[in-house]
Amino acid sequence: MRPSGRTPDQLRSLSIETGFTRHAEGSCLISFGDTRVLVTASLEERLPSWLRGKGQGWVTAEYGMLPRSTHSRTNREAARGKQSGRTQEIQRLIGRSLRAGIDLKKLGERQITIDCDVLQADGGTRTASISGGWVALRLAVNKLLASGQLTEDPIISQVAAVSCGISQGVPVLDLDYAEDSTAEADANFVMMGDSRLIEVQASAEGAPYDEEGLLRLARMGCQQIFAEQKKAVA
Amino acid sequence: MRPSGRTPDQLRSLSIETGFTRHAEGSCLISFGDTRVLVTASLEERLPSWLRGKGQGWVTAEYGMLPRSTHSRTNREAARGKQSGRTQEIQRLIGRSLRAGIDLKKLGERQITIDCDVLQADGGTRTASISGGWVALRLAVNKLLASGQLTEDPIISQVAAVSCGISQGVPVLDLDYAEDSTAEADANFVMMGDSRLIEVQASAEGAPYDEEGLLRLARMGCQQIFAEQKKAVA
Amino acid sequence: MRPSGRTPDQLRSLSIETGFTRHAEGSCLISFGDTRVLVTASLEERLPSWLRGKGQGWVTAEYGMLPRSTHSRTNREAARGKQSGRTQEIQRLIGRSLRAGIDLKKLGERQITIDCDVLQADGGTRTASISGGWVALRLAVNKLLASGQLTEDPIISQVAAVSCGISQGVPVLDLDYAEDSTAEADANFVMMGDSRLIEVQASAEGAPYDEEGLLRLARMGCQQIFAEQKKAVA
Amino acid sequence: MRPSGRTPDQLRSLSIETGFTRHAEGSCLISFGDTRVLVTASLEERLPSWLRGKGQGWVTAEYGMLPRSTHSRTNREAARGKQSGRTQEIQRLIGRSLRAGIDLKKLGERQITIDCDVLQADGGTRTASISGGWVALRLAVNKLLASGQLTEDPIISQVAAVSCGISQGVPVLDLDYAEDSTAEADANFVMMGDSRLIEVQASAEGAPYDEEGLLRLARMGCQQIFAEQKKAVA
Amino acid sequence: MRPSGRTPDQLRSLSIETGFTRHAEGSCLISFGDTRVLVTASLEERLPSWLRGKGQGWVTAEYGMLPRSTHSRTNREAARGKQSGRTQEIQRLIGRSLRAGIDLKKLGERQITIDCDVLQADGGTRTASISGGWVALRLAVNKLLASGQLTEDPIISQVAAVSCGISQGVPVLDLDYAEDSTAEADANFVMMGDSRLIEVQASAEGAPYDEEGLLRLARMGCQQIFAEQKKAVA
Amino acid sequence: MRPSGRTPDQLRSLSIETGFTRHAEGSCLISFGDTRVLVTASLEERLPSWLRGKGQGWVTAEYGMLPRSTHSRTNREAARGKQSGRTQEIQRLIGRSLRAGIDLKKLGERQITIDCDVLQADGGTRTASISGGWVALRLAVNKLLASGQLTEDPIISQVAAVSCGISQGVPVLDLDYAEDSTAEADANFVMMGDSRLIEVQASAEGAPYDEEGLLRLARMGCQQIFAEQKKAVA
Repeated sequence: MRPSGRTPDQLRSLSIETGFTRHAEGSCLISFGDTRVLVTASLEERLPSWLRGKGQGWVTAEYGMLPRSTHSRTNREAARGKQSGRTQEIQRLIGRSLRAGIDLKKLGERQITIDCDVLQADGGTRTASISGGWVALRLAVNKLLASGQLTEDPIISQVAAVSCGISQGVPVLDLDYAEDSTAEADANFVMMGDSRLIEVQASAEGAPYDEEGLLRLARMGCQQIFAEQKKAVA
Repeated sequence: MRPSGRTPDQLRSLSIETGFTRHAEGSCLISFGDTRVLVTASLEERLPSWLRGKGQGWVTAEYGMLPRSTHSRTNREAARGKQSGRTQEIQRLIGRSLRAGIDLKKLGERQITIDCDVLQADGGTRTASISGGWVALRLAVNKLLASGQLTEDPIISQVAAVSCGISQGVPVLDLDYAEDSTAEADANFVMMGDSRLIEVQASAEGAPYDEEGLLRLARMGCQQIFAEQKKAVA
Repeated sequence: MRPSGRTPDQLRSLSIETGFTRHAEGSCLISFGDTRVLVTASLEERLPSWLRGKGQGWVTAEYGMLPRSTHSRTNREAARGKQSGRTQEIQRLIGRSLRAGIDLKKLGERQITIDCDVLQADGGTRTASISGGWVALRLAVNKLLASGQLTEDPIISQVAAVSCGISQGVPVLDLDYAEDSTAEADANFVMMGDSRLIEVQASAEGAPYDEEGLLRLARMGCQQIFAEQKKAVA
Repeated sequence: MRPSGRTPDQLRSLSIETGFTRHAEGSCLISFGDTRVLVTASLEERLPSWLRGKGQGWVTAEYGMLPRSTHSRTNREAARGKQSGRTQEIQRLIGRSLRAGIDLKKLGERQITIDCDVLQADGGTRTASISGGWVALRLAVNKLLASGQLTEDPIISQVAAVSCGISQGVPVLDLDYAEDSTAEADANFVMMGDSRLIEVQASAEGAPYDEEGLLRLARMGCQQIFAEQKKAVA
Repeated sequence: MRPSGRTPDQLRSLSIETGFTRHAEGSCLISFGDTRVLVTASLEERLPSWLRGKGQGWVTAEYGMLPRSTHSRTNREAARGKQSGRTQEIQRLIGRSLRAGIDLKKLGERQITIDCDVLQADGGTRTASISGGWVALRLAVNKLLASGQLTEDPIISQVAAVSCGISQGVPVLDLDYAEDSTAEADANFVMMGDSRLIEVQASAEGAPYDEEGLLRLARMGCQQIFAEQKKAVA
Repeated sequence: MRPSGRTPDQLRSLSIETGFTRHAEGSCLISFGDTRVLVTASLEERLPSWLRGKGQGWVTAEYGMLPRSTHSRTNREAARGKQSGRTQEIQRLIGRSLRAGIDLKKLGERQITIDCDVLQADGGTRTASISGGWVALRLAVNKLLASGQLTEDPIISQVAAVSCGISQGVPVLDLDYAEDSTAEADANFVMMGDSRLIEVQASAEGAPYDEEGLLRLARMGCQQIFAEQKKAVA
C-alpha cells in the first residue's frame, strides 16, 4: 500500500488550468496532487546574441520554487544572489526536453521562455514543469499561428514527463514527497507523444533497478498526461 | 470616468483566499482586481544573529514578482543574481509596516517571515502585499496561540495599505496599472486598524497634491480592507 | 528643549562649499551640522541603452557612505559586493527628486550622474544629498550653457529636501541622529522652489502624525535651503 | 567505422597515474584517450555545519575545466564569478556517485572533497572524473586506515562510470568529442563493482534508444575500468 | 622642467589635517598637491575568526576612490558588485606596510581598520594612503594609551611612502598624474622611520632603471613626510 | 645550508615541457622543483571592446591555483564566486610583464590570453607563470608566423622572472615554500633577455635589504631560465 493509498500504477489527481495568468502568451497551473506549478510561456521577438542571424529560434526554461512552497522555508534564491545547482540542473532539463518537441527553424528568429514557478511542492516538480511547459508552449505557438506570424506549425510532438521509482520493493508511478524521500530507486522519464524517450535520469544507488518495469509505468503515466494536455489546449 | 469604470472612491474587487498553500503557518492569495499576490507566513524558532538573546522576536518580509507577472517579461532576479532596488525598497516597507502592528517582545524569540510573491501585477502590488501580509501573520500567530506556544496575543492592531492618486485632476482610490502609469501624483498609505498612519510614501513631482483628500480616500479604502481581513481570518 | 539646544523650527548650521573637488562638472560639500556630504555632478555624452534615440537626457544618482562616516564602522559596500536596500532606496529617491526639477528633453541626449558620498553622518543624509545634488546639477548645467552645448536652460525649478519629525510630542525641523533615533514620527519632504511637493516619505508607526504641522516646518526649512543654494551657485 | 577507428565496444586507451600531485591525501591523473582529468582527494577533520554532530562523515566533489582544456577557450568560471549550470550538475553527479560506494557512518566525522580538474577535454569528462574520483578516494581512505584513524574500511564498493551512445545507428562505448557531438543518443552509466546501477543519465531526443544494448556495453566498459582502478590502487 | 614646475627632488605641497571626521578613533585628510585622501582608523574589539585566540591583534586596510575623484567618472565599485584588481592590490599593500610598523602582539586582541578613500586623484594615491594611514593609526593607538586600554606602545616605527620615477630621462620625486602617465619607469617605496625599506614596487618595462637614484630621492621625500607626520600627531 | 640543500645561487631543477595540452595555440608545463604550472596561450581574433579599432593587439593573463595544489586545500575561487586579491594581483603582474616583451601594434588586432594554472605549489608560482607564459606566447606567435597570419615577428625580447630573498641573513635565489615563509626579505624580478628590468616587487619589512646582491642573483637565475626557454621553443 502506498502512503497515498494509490495503486502502484496510479497517477495522482492531475489537473491543468490554462490561462491562470493573463499577461503571458501561454500559461497554465498544473497540479499533480499537492504539487502545483505555475507555468508561463513568454514570447520575445529577439534572440540571445549567440543565436542571432542563424535562421532559427530558441526555447529556454527557468525554474524556481517559492520560498514556502516547501515543508520548511527555503531561502529565496534572489536574496541569496544565486540559483542553486539543483535549480540550474532542472531548468536545463526542462529546456532540453521542450526543444526536442519543436522545430526551431520553423519557429523563426524568436525566443519563447518557459517560466516554471512552484507554488507548492510535494514531489515531482520537474516532471510537472515539463508536462505543463508543453501546454504553455503549445498555447503560445497557437497565438503565433492565429495571428499569422507563423504559417506552419513548428511543434513536432507533445512532450510529457513523469517519475517512477522502486518503493518498498515495488515499482510505482508518480512518487509524491513521502515516497520520493524513501524510495530505493527513482527515475524521471521524458517522452514524446509516441512514447519515444527524450531523457532518462535515474538514481538507484545500487538498489535493484528494473528499467523495463519503470519504463512501462512511465509510458502508462505519460499516456494519461498526453490526454490531459490535449484537453487543456483544445 | 476611470479607465476601469470605477467611481473615484471605489476599490477594485477585493478577495482574500486563505490557505492557498498548505505548508506555511499562514497563507493567503489576495487579489485587488487583476493584481494577485500569494502571501505566506513562515515561522522559525530562531532569530537573525544580531537579535539573539535580546528577549524579543522579529517579523521580516521578502517580495518578488514572477517573471511573467508583468505585461512583458521581467528578468528573474535569482538568475540576474540580485534583487533590484525596487524589490528591496518594497520588502523593507512591508516589514516595517507589519512590525508596527505587533509587540515583538510578546512574540518571543522567534521569527516570522512574510513572503509576498506577485503572481499577476496590475498596480498596487506593495499595498496588496501589506494587506495580505497581515492576514498571513495573523493566521500564523493564531497557530502559536492554539498550540500554547504563546499564551498572550502579540498582535496590537490590524495593518492595511492602499494607494491613492490624482488622476486627470481627480483624487482616486486604489489605482490600477493604467491609472498608476499616468497619474499626476500617487501615494501609498499604511494604516493601523484605528486609522492611525504607519507610513506615507507620496510622489507628486510638483502636481497639486491634496494630502487631505487622498488621506480621506485611503481611510475609506482601508476600512473595507480591514473588514475583508476580519472575514478572512475569522 | 532639543538635544542640540535648537528651537523646534531651527535648521542646523547649513553650509554649501562649491568646487570642493575639481574634476567634476559640478560639485559641492554640503553640511547640515555634523552631516557632511560630498556631491559631484558628472556629465557624460552618452545614455543608458534603454534611453538611446529617444530625444531626451537623463539624470541619475548614486549614494554611498564612507565606512567610518558612521558612529561605529559600517562594512564597505564594495567589499561586501552589493549595495544595501537602504542605499538603493536613497539613491532612487535622489534621482527621482532631481529629475522633477529638470526638463529632460531640453537637456538633450546626455546623462548627468549625481554622486552623493557621505563623509560624516549625523542624520538627514538623504535630504542633504538632494539639496546638495541640486547645486551640483545647477553648476554642471551652467557649464553646458556657458560652453554653448545648451542654449536653453533645462532646469525648471530648484529642488530641496528636509526632514521633520515628532520628538517628545513636539514637531521639529531637521532632525539630527540623536533625535532621529528616538522620534515618534519622522518624514522627509522634497519640494520645488515654489513649495510644491515632489516626494513625501513618512514613518509614524501609529504615533499622532501631524502632517500639517510638519509640512509647515518643512516649507520654512526649504526656504532657507533655497536661499543657501542660490548663494552657492551665484 | 568510428572516427577513432575503434570497434563499437572498445574503450579508449585508459591510464590512471596515481600520486600525480603530492599534497593531496589521494590523487591521480586519469586519461581516457585525450581526455585527461587531475583528481585529488582532500581530507578535512571537519564537516559542513548542517552535518555536525550527526555521527557520520561526508564525501563531496567539485569539478572544473581549465579554460583551454577545450577546443576554443572557455571563460574561467572564477573570473565570471560563478559556476555554470553544467559544472554544478556534474559535480553533484560525481558526489552522489561516490557516496553510493562508501558507508558515511563508518567514515566518521570527517569530510573528503574530491576535486576533478579537466586538463584536456575530448568527451567523457564526467565519467572520467567519477572513475578517477574513486581511485583518489580509495587512496585517501587507505591513509586513514594505515594511520589508524580508521580501523574499519568504510568503502563498500568500487564505483566507475562510462558513456555509451548511438552513433550512426550503432551502439558504441566511450564516446569521444567527435562522436558525442553528433550522436543520436548518449547516456552516462555509473555502476558499483558488481554492476549494479547507481545513476543513469540518458538523452535521446526521440532517437531509437536501446537501453539494453547500451547497458551491456556499459557493463563491459566498467569491468575494464574496475580492473584498472584495482591496479592503480594496489 | 616638470609639468608642475617642480624641481626633480621636490615633493608636492603636503598637508595633513587631523580630525577631519569625528567618529573615527583616528582620522586625517592628507593632500599631496591635488591628491586628497580621507583616512580613518577604526578600532574594533574583535578579530577576524582566523586570528581569534592567537594572542595578537590585526591591522588591515581598505581603499576606494570616489567615482568622480578621477578626471572622468569611474564606475562605483559598490554598484558594480566587486572591487577591481587594482583596488585589492592597493589595499593589500597598505595593510602590509602599516603592519610592518606595529607590534601586533603588543596591540592585543583587537583590530584596527584603516579606510583610505580618495576624494580627489592626481597620482600617488596609494603612497598618500600609506603615509596618511600611519597618522590615523598613530592617533587611534594614542587613544588606547590615553584610556589605559594599552599600557605599552605597540608602534615600532613611523611608516611613509612616496613614488619616484624616470620622466624624460630624469629621476623625479612624487609624480603627479601628468608625469605618472608618461614616465619611463616608476616605483613606489615604503619605508620605516630610519629609512629601512618595507616594500618596493617598480615597473620599468625595460627603461634604464636607476634604483640607486630613485631610492635616494625616495629617502629625501620620506624624511619630509616623516616630519609632517610628526607635526600632525603632536 | 638551505632547507633543500641548494647553494645560495642555485635554481631548483627547472623543466619546461611544451605541448602538454593539445588544443592551445601554445602550451607548456613548467616546473621549478615541486612547483608545477600548466600554461596555455589562446589566440582569439577579437579584442576587448575598449581596444577595438585602435590598430593594435592585446596580451592578457589569468591565474589560478587548483584547490589542492596547496598543502592544505584552498577553496575553489569559482565556487566562492570571486577571485582573491592575491590572484588578481598576480595575473595583472603576468600580463604587464609579458606585454613588455611584445610589440602590440605588430601583433595586429587579436588577443592572446595566457592561462596559468598551478597544479602544484611550492613557492614561486608567479615567477614560474611568467617564465612559462613567455614560452606559450612564443609558441602561439610562431603559429601565426608559420601560417602567414603575421609576416613580422612582434616579439621584442624574451621575458623571465625569478624570486630572490634574504634567508637567515644570506641572499638566496629561487625560494621554495619552506624558505619563502620564513625569509626576512623577498623580491620578485622580471627581466628582459638583456637583463633590463621590467618589474620589481620586494617586501622587506625593515630587514636589511641588499638590492644589489639580490639583483645579481636574479640576473644569474634569469640567464638559466632564458637558456631553458630557448631550448623549449627551438
